[in-house]
Amino acid sequence: MPDNNHIHPFDEAVELKPTSSDTYEGCIPQTYANMVGPFGGIIVAVILNGILCHKERQGDPVSITVNFAGPIADAPFELSVRLIRTNRSNQHWIAELTQESQVAATATAILATRQETWMMSEAQAPDAPRPEEVELWPAPAKPNWVKRYEYRIILGELTFTGQPAKDSESLLWVRDVPERPLDFLSLAAVCDVFFPRVFLRRQKLGVVGTITITTYFHADVPSLERQASRPILASARGQRFYRGYFDQVAELWSDEGELLTSSIQMVYFKD
Amino acid sequence: MPDNNHIHPFDEAVELKPTSSDTYEGCIPQTYANMVGPFGGIIVAVILNGILCHKERQGDPVSITVNFAGPIADAPFELSVRLIRTNRSNQHWIAELTQESQVAATATAILATRQETWMMSEAQAPDAPRPEEVELWPAPAKPNWVKRYEYRIILGELTFTGQPAKDSESLLWVRDVPERPLDFLSLAAVCDVFFPRVFLRRQKLGVVGTITITTYFHADVPSLERQASRPILASARGQRFYRGYFDQVAELWSDEGELLTSSIQMVYFKD
Repeated sequence: MPDNNHIHPFDEAVELKPTSSDTYEGCIPQTYANMVGPFGGIIVAVILNGILCHKERQGDPVSITVNFAGPIADAPFELSVRLIRTNRSNQHWIAELTQESQVAATATAILATRQETWMMSEAQAPDAPRPEEVELWPAPAKPNWVKRYEYRIILGELTFTGQPAKDSESLLWVRDVPERPLDFLSLAAVCDVFFPRVFLRRQKLGVVGTITITTYFHADVPSLERQASRPILASARGQRFYRGYFDQVAELWSDEGELLTSSIQMVYFKD
Repeated sequence: MPDNNHIHPFDEAVELKPTSSDTYEGCIPQTYANMVGPFGGIIVAVILNGILCHKERQGDPVSITVNFAGPIADAPFELSVRLIRTNRSNQHWIAELTQESQVAATATAILATRQETWMMSEAQAPDAPRPEEVELWPAPAKPNWVKRYEYRIILGELTFTGQPAKDSESLLWVRDVPERPLDFLSLAAVCDVFFPRVFLRRQKLGVVGTITITTYFHADVPSLERQASRPILASARGQRFYRGYFDQVAELWSDEGELLTSSIQMVYFKD
């Protein structure tokens, strides 16, 4: 029996067992459970893990899109990844996650070997107090996955008063619990830590589900190493809530003000 | 012979000939040619057309992601579309565009039957003069596709002085040439009409190529009908230019201030 005492819950959750050169089996434990099925961010991470563990992998992630095609149970799944094309400096992948022979998620990802070029950070990190100056958010008992993150909320508290907020802006410091050095997988997961925009804007609960999320990685390995396990500044807002769907635009920043990811998701909601 | 005199160049470009229930042949004409191969926006449109023309299609687009896996020639291509899953109110699709047996683009899309819900437009259209108050941009002779759009540029002129601009913001009114009533296909194409952010920021030309674009549709059929063929307000900015890639975040607005799409793309560049 492996000694699980020293495995971080995140690493345990994204673990995959190869079943052929292009397929894996996995099962996301209850530690990352959402209200129904696992936390979306951990699903993105486990799919990306399947691609990054493939023996033909070249380069690091620059983009991933995951479409959630149906409910995913807290149960074993199969993941198949397919290398579509390798170019001189990038690689294109498709992945499918199936449960009980039904496709539950599809994904496409691009990996790249980065070159030295002209550089410019046009977007600037929002003004924020330092993490140690912001109170720790007392996470509720459910869903489980929120206890896998330390939240320090600057903007966008959930009050559930039913009094609509003036906007759906969120700004918070976030990091893994327990602390864990940042990698591409955990960064991909953090892009989905935000409360649903419609809960914030309406200050009431409802039925929601992300149907698709796209994340672009501006971070490379040196960026991840610089950030290590310190809190990430996370910012998100909704742009339009219309006839059953709303979007969420989000950015993650290093604590030195470096843009690590830009991300967008479309979310289904019901009144 | 069909009378092509009355076919709009856009409709001609996105035309597909079914070769089986899930496959098509197409060829994007020179009218939408870019410097190398066709304009990216028309490729998104033709892939979406393959999905929307499928006999099992249910609903209208809420999201599409297209990954450009390799160069696409101005030549015939095959398009295959695959219905992954149909749920009560949405459908998941995957598509692949191949040329000479090589995958040139992959795509995933979600269609949905929209329901009536609570609605809120949180993002507001940027302030802009009316289209008739903005001068028509004199499009250059090449690439061909820019002549398929009427540009009225408010922010983000290309001067090519080599003097870096203070930002890469664009704001413009845009519509098809000749005028054409808006539909999901032309809306998807317009999301890609922006000049590359790195050209604007550096005010010089270079090698660039979109590697992936994701568009979310907030517009439904009534929104398209309201907008008809009037100019769309288009806004875009780059957030970070880093080691060979930059992102571009964009929104399209109706001339009545309705958010029609939110879109994001990642672009490869070389110095």
